[in-house]
Amino acid sequence: MTRACNFSAGPAALPEEVLVQAQSELLDWGHTGASVMELSHRGRDFMALAAESEQDLRDLMGIPDHYRVLFLQGGATQHFAQIPMNFAAPDQVADYIVTGAWGEKAVREAMPYVQARIAATSVDKHFTRIPPRDAWSLDPRARYVHYTPNETIHGVEFQEVPEVGDVPLIADMSSDILSRPLDVSKFGMIYAGAQKNIGASGLVVVIVRDDLLERCPDSIARIFSYAEHAAGHSLFNTPNTFGWYLASLVFKWLKREGGLAVIGERNRAKANRLYGVIDGSGFYSNPVEPSARSWMNVPFFLPRVELEAPFLAEAGAAGLIGLKGHRALGGMRASLYNAVTMESVETLVDFMTDFARRHG
Amino acid sequence: MTRACNFSAGPAALPEEVLVQAQSELLDWGHTGASVMELSHRGRDFMALAAESEQDLRDLMGIPDHYRVLFLQGGATQHFAQIPMNFAAPDQVADYIVTGAWGEKAVREAMPYVQARIAATSVDKHFTRIPPRDAWSLDPRARYVHYTPNETIHGVEFQEVPEVGDVPLIADMSSDILSRPLDVSKFGMIYAGAQKNIGASGLVVVIVRDDLLERCPDSIARIFSYAEHAAGHSLFNTPNTFGWYLASLVFKWLKREGGLAVIGERNRAKANRLYGVIDGSGFYSNPVEPSARSWMNVPFFLPRVELEAPFLAEAGAAGLIGLKGHRALGGMRASLYNAVTMESVETLVDFMTDFARRHG
Repeated sequence: MTRACNFSAGPAALPEEVLVQAQSELLDWGHTGASVMELSHRGRDFMALAAESEQDLRDLMGIPDHYRVLFLQGGATQHFAQIPMNFAAPDQVADYIVTGAWGEKAVREAMPYVQARIAATSVDKHFTRIPPRDAWSLDPRARYVHYTPNETIHGVEFQEVPEVGDVPLIADMSSDILSRPLDVSKFGMIYAGAQKNIGASGLVVVIVRDDLLERCPDSIARIFSYAEHAAGHSLFNTPNTFGWYLASLVFKWLKREGGLAVIGERNRAKANRLYGVIDGSGFYSNPVEPSARSWMNVPFFLPRVELEAPFLAEAGAAGLIGLKGHRALGGMRASLYNAVTMESVETLVDFMTDFARRHG
Repeated sequence: MTRACNFSAGPAALPEEVLVQAQSELLDWGHTGASVMELSHRGRDFMALAAESEQDLRDLMGIPDHYRVLFLQGGATQHFAQIPMNFAAPDQVADYIVTGAWGEKAVREAMPYVQARIAATSVDKHFTRIPPRDAWSLDPRARYVHYTPNETIHGVEFQEVPEVGDVPLIADMSSDILSRPLDVSKFGMIYAGAQKNIGASGLVVVIVRDDLLERCPDSIARIFSYAEHAAGHSLFNTPNTFGWYLASLVFKWLKREGGLAVIGERNRAKANRLYGVIDGSGFYSNPVEPSARSWMNVPFFLPRVELEAPFLAEAGAAGLIGLKGHRALGGMRASLYNAVTMESVETLVDFMTDFARRHG
């Protein structure tokens, strides 16, 4: 078995020791005589896993008691629609801060269910910066303010949580949850698709403040109601049990590694190393304003488009995978999620330096 | 490692050779250097898996070309709501045939989006039979007729596809898809949560006729539109890639076993064996009318409630798990999905016979 250095943007690299554990108990989990995915979500064993995983996430993120933690399905994209279905009405207003392609999608999916206002956007700057806070035009009547702290495609990340007053702040943290310490109490709701820093695709973690749940209307199907899922402890219907189990292993791994302060410093160092090589190369380029550069996703371009195919082919031959940029942007992208080691980053920068020397 | 005889109603037993294969390639799938769950759903390797798995399902079920096959999320429960969102309007009528708890839930989740008529129900018979077809009061204006061919909790199964004229027939086949041959062309749509006969929870397979997709309105979020998912080949957003992969392994296993004709005969024999022991015991009982008995889920009762705890404890000690009945019905239940072997059924009936002898 040879494991590649995996820079995929998502689904993405998982910690190897998580995969080794999952592998070792795939046919017999916890002496049950069955795989975790063969057991009832309402059985004693899975219920214990569910409770412990929630507590581990609460410990890691310091989630206050007046927030519920939900393990749902549908991907972040479904929640783009569920958020206004739960917290607003079609004739009410919600503010959206758009700093990349995912913010744009969040607006598009929300539109049938709320008057989605774009209170700030950097589309005019090709999503290479964060619009300055004093230029945002927030509406005080907004039911919530939605933003995307890290834009996976454009590689743009907020370095601080924006101040939005009394309006609940909702964040799609699919690509930066658990990447560094965070003050959860500043948010009305945080949600994240699991396939970057939590585990595998098909699971969404939602962290939502109690008072927001009081808004969930009876006029939607119960399966779409966050209040119903909270009341049912995410067992209103059958959850993605294997995805939840993998998340539970990742949470344990994060605790063993020392928690989010340690992970955050590691992520900062990985990102600094790669941006440093890009900026110092005279060959590669990253168009994002330095103060808005993502620690998680580093898009970069080669000086000539015709070098892209040989770059990817040679990288693949060297065991470096997942480097092709998103089709919306082109170029390359290296995603540096928690499970990507500094050793993988060193292997990448060595390859990049050598490639630049040969083609520069 | 000791594998139990697993009669769980879902999530449920998987074929052991599927789990062994998944285990062997969990850290390095197809020489990619990564787990299947660490790779982009839009990469060459996963796209090939997606295409091949769809073809395998088409081969197994004989799905005609004018049907789309989708691999989605949300569980069947979410699709209870999505079906009327896609195929009807709140002021239109849809007919529901209710033969158990899942049919009731389907109605409840649909109610915000359609005038859900109960065209037939066996609730007055405590869901122990199928209402005779000539007693159904179908509405010719109905946008569709929905039914649940197999009711997992009550153990009631249609032995034939009902005739409903020109109105599209929609079936929640979560617990009996792939359990025997089926004429797909009689349906407008078939859907199934994967956690019984397809694979693991967190995946839903939808088989939908092209003409129904033309009904999907622009007024709902795109993430809820079956037409969008069909246009995007189930990659409109990130699918549950590991769940899809497991399904692909199960489809290959079914083909190796000889397909649905072979599987159907095997399931018939397993069910006959267990019902025979129950009926012949003078100890156990199953309340369902013989013509409506499920091949997949066999609820049964002990003569005295106080025997239930020792039955479950002794069964567990003998390596028989997942036998506790649903909390809505009580008693016991043995689910006999495709992955449950005749050997497991023989172990169960031996145990049951011995238990009856000692407690009768």
